[in-house]
Amino acid sequence: KVYGGIFLYLDNRKQMNYTEENRRKTAYFARKRGNMIRVTVWNEYLHEKEEPVRHIYPNGIHGCIKEFLQTDEELVIKTATFEMPEHGLTEEVLKQTDVLIFWSHMRQNEFSDEVAARVCSHVRQGMGLVALHSAHFSKIMKGLLGTSMTLRWKHGESERVFCTAPYHPIAEGIPERFDIPKEEMYGEYFDIPKPDDVIFTGWFSCGEVFRSGCTFHSGYGKIFYFQPGHEEYPVYYIPEVQKIIKNAVHWCKPSVRKTSQLDCAEVKEVTLP
Amino acid sequence: KVYGGIFLYLDNRKQMNYTEENRRKTAYFARKRGNMIRVTVWNEYLHEKEEPVRHIYPNGIHGCIKEFLQTDEELVIKTATFEMPEHGLTEEVLKQTDVLIFWSHMRQNEFSDEVAARVCSHVRQGMGLVALHSAHFSKIMKGLLGTSMTLRWKHGESERVFCTAPYHPIAEGIPERFDIPKEEMYGEYFDIPKPDDVIFTGWFSCGEVFRSGCTFHSGYGKIFYFQPGHEEYPVYYIPEVQKIIKNAVHWCKPSVRKTSQLDCAEVKEVTLP
Amino acid sequence: KVYGGIFLYLDNRKQMNYTEENRRKTAYFARKRGNMIRVTVWNEYLHEKEEPVRHIYPNGIHGCIKEFLQTDEELVIKTATFEMPEHGLTEEVLKQTDVLIFWSHMRQNEFSDEVAARVCSHVRQGMGLVALHSAHFSKIMKGLLGTSMTLRWKHGESERVFCTAPYHPIAEGIPERFDIPKEEMYGEYFDIPKPDDVIFTGWFSCGEVFRSGCTFHSGYGKIFYFQPGHEEYPVYYIPEVQKIIKNAVHWCKPSVRKTSQLDCAEVKEVTLP
Amino acid sequence: KVYGGIFLYLDNRKQMNYTEENRRKTAYFARKRGNMIRVTVWNEYLHEKEEPVRHIYPNGIHGCIKEFLQTDEELVIKTATFEMPEHGLTEEVLKQTDVLIFWSHMRQNEFSDEVAARVCSHVRQGMGLVALHSAHFSKIMKGLLGTSMTLRWKHGESERVFCTAPYHPIAEGIPERFDIPKEEMYGEYFDIPKPDDVIFTGWFSCGEVFRSGCTFHSGYGKIFYFQPGHEEYPVYYIPEVQKIIKNAVHWCKPSVRKTSQLDCAEVKEVTLP
Repeated sequence: KVYGGIFLYLDNRKQMNYTEENRRKTAYFARKRGNMIRVTVWNEYLHEKEEPVRHIYPNGIHGCIKEFLQTDEELVIKTATFEMPEHGLTEEVLKQTDVLIFWSHMRQNEFSDEVAARVCSHVRQGMGLVALHSAHFSKIMKGLLGTSMTLRWKHGESERVFCTAPYHPIAEGIPERFDIPKEEMYGEYFDIPKPDDVIFTGWFSCGEVFRSGCTFHSGYGKIFYFQPGHEEYPVYYIPEVQKIIKNAVHWCKPSVRKTSQLDCAEVKEVTLP
Repeated sequence: KVYGGIFLYLDNRKQMNYTEENRRKTAYFARKRGNMIRVTVWNEYLHEKEEPVRHIYPNGIHGCIKEFLQTDEELVIKTATFEMPEHGLTEEVLKQTDVLIFWSHMRQNEFSDEVAARVCSHVRQGMGLVALHSAHFSKIMKGLLGTSMTLRWKHGESERVFCTAPYHPIAEGIPERFDIPKEEMYGEYFDIPKPDDVIFTGWFSCGEVFRSGCTFHSGYGKIFYFQPGHEEYPVYYIPEVQKIIKNAVHWCKPSVRKTSQLDCAEVKEVTLP
Repeated sequence: KVYGGIFLYLDNRKQMNYTEENRRKTAYFARKRGNMIRVTVWNEYLHEKEEPVRHIYPNGIHGCIKEFLQTDEELVIKTATFEMPEHGLTEEVLKQTDVLIFWSHMRQNEFSDEVAARVCSHVRQGMGLVALHSAHFSKIMKGLLGTSMTLRWKHGESERVFCTAPYHPIAEGIPERFDIPKEEMYGEYFDIPKPDDVIFTGWFSCGEVFRSGCTFHSGYGKIFYFQPGHEEYPVYYIPEVQKIIKNAVHWCKPSVRKTSQLDCAEVKEVTLP
Repeated sequence: KVYGGIFLYLDNRKQMNYTEENRRKTAYFARKRGNMIRVTVWNEYLHEKEEPVRHIYPNGIHGCIKEFLQTDEELVIKTATFEMPEHGLTEEVLKQTDVLIFWSHMRQNEFSDEVAARVCSHVRQGMGLVALHSAHFSKIMKGLLGTSMTLRWKHGESERVFCTAPYHPIAEGIPERFDIPKEEMYGEYFDIPKPDDVIFTGWFSCGEVFRSGCTFHSGYGKIFYFQPGHEEYPVYYIPEVQKIIKNAVHWCKPSVRKTSQLDCAEVKEVTLP
């Protein structure tokens, strides 16, 4: 593996108990009964085509995420990227996606309005969404949350992530705090609606704080936003980060999935209880 | 006054204590020191041009709202309607508006995208918004809240409005419950984000419930959505409804008002405390 | 079965799909790997010793709840009642309880302060709590939520329950609305803290509304309060009510369980990330 | 003034615009019409009797708070301390208090259970509460919020306070961030219920974060908890801290005040709307 110092740091850490064993058994039956969670990992996939980012994520951020998700046998994982037709997010793909993981940055303005609207529609109908790092400023997140999604930023700081909702399923198995040796600082005021839960709060060495892990919902769909993951640092190799994304996929899966655009409905007949 | 039976109902009710006296005195000084709340009442103003709605609101819904707001001397009130150039909501008008009251229905799809974006921008920068009745489905509310804003509806039911957050300033002076003899039913599931507060909950005679009065925020702006107010019934003459809208105007006024579009900002220099 | 008309009503309804099949398979492995959810159903068990309540719940409300929970093979279910020593809620029992279901009414004032404090402590350390109907006014719920828990009430009304958070796991498989033919009305203003989620809202025939299904948390523990279940009506035989309680048990299970009383901790050594 | 370095720091800062002028005018009429806000500042008043704390707060923390509140002419301010009979919080005093400011630390366990219950009762009936610093662990706050109120702590760190809800009235006039040169660190996980609003979030030099300014409600009463204010540092002389406490007093004042203990009420007669 690459990126010496930081990976040494990772190697030296006490391994978390992933409860992988339990999930493997559950997954065996999920496969049998056909109710696996279908995940699509979407990545812009531009930064990783050149050094130094290529060195960190030789198969792209989506490749890295897919790899660590695959140890969870309850998941069926596909990937899609910006350069595919319709960004790889056709009606057909979204219909077959339970949870969409989304990383974007450089070309958010060029992202198709039509595809963004389609993704928003599917979230409102129940599809789960895990939006990572700079995806806060994607057309999808702005469309779903309505606020400006603005924040303050600075490269190359260290972050300490605190769990501020340890009772939440996304926090399961995560320690009370963990460190990210190098990360892009995102700082308050983060212009988001009041989150359903603020599960993680970040402390940054440059004197800033951030609501780093937040849940929302839009329509029937559950949304988790998670700040860590700047492309220049190997953040998605950190065990706690991987565990949080896995937990989020399980939490985000639809409780109900509508099959058509939501619309206002007239009540014509009335029966009282 | 018009619309017999229902107004008789109104006449027979015990008058609420509006604490008008107090506000009058405060207002005297607000005027002197130049910090009045500047309100723009916006109305589509189409239904009221024909019977039977003209009979109920001869000066339009905006005229009725302006009239009862005028007893609050802390407010400076203007009106604007759909048919004015740029719907009467130019950059200049919005800059000089602290709180926008907004009623719309028939022509929501024809409302200018550009003006809708401009209004959303001003709300995110701090302008208060009171959205009434069918305005839930306006481009403005959909843009600010991000959900589908869908609901169920039926004409001609009676509603009982319960106060479910009596500690909130918008509920000040409002009884624990009050009745609206005839209203358009709006019923759940109302597809909104989790409200900051659900101040009023409606019971409808046809066996439905609704979160009838909800607060949200978007960026620096405060939003109050209030369901009562179908054009065919004289709902805006009901004292409690008037009092709630007045309270909402006071609550919605900006705590801070940004003067330019919000944007992400790079932190360049760091001083630690 | 008993109570004619109402059960006929139940018999005539379309059966819900409980996804029992899926849970059975998961449970098989849960048992094998030793991570079943350990449920204690606590009931005051006084009303059911005399007619007419005995006729409805011949084995007590706890017996009825235990019976329908048993179809979920992931659960290991015990019961306890008021008359047992320490109300059957010893330190040992609570330590081995993942989720406590709690029904109480007549003798809430006589409930031991010590046992109530012990239960609150375990909830704060992570034990899940499903509080049913009149248990809103138990020492446990008052202690955990801090408000007066007061409400308005009236016997013998019909209720229509609306799902106002369909994205929530507790709502999984529950229709948008369902009816309870006869229930004790509980009405607003219900003096609770702002719930984490209001999953169900009740409409009552006597012109009242209620936040009938609410989630909270206290410390590390998750709490679900559910209004339906007056002892004089066979409410716990209604399929949707049973399904909601089952879902709640799964949702309430601890994400983390502390093994000692929570306390403030001094930070002595500092390492920055 | 005392405490050199830190006060120099204060002297060197740009003065905030307190909008004192406006409040003075409003106050003139509030006095005339008899609707001043009646504030009771309660302080344990033990630490300040000996050095070095006496040097910082020669008239006690309550004396300091009273002094800066007095520039707000809408307020009528009294003080009370631990050593007074019934801690100075008799039924009579509380009845005449709109907002109680509360600082406590050393003798929280010795605080009378009866008086604590009385205060909680008045908050639930509508009295506002501003709980400062170590008062998080008072019988009053534990009783009102129900959680363990535990946290992590360490002396002598610097804090940067961020405004994470700039739209809230308590944040009015407060900059996006401000520094406290020396403060007792309070760190997460802070075991509180989900706050109605997290208005301020603290960054600490020792690598910790904290939800430093939170609102809650209990019954009809509004509560603001504010972390800054360890007795050994002159925190209550900082202009932003003073402004926040003033804003909180205005925000906390009752919207409604019940005059008797809250209780469940039977509905006997039904009229439908």
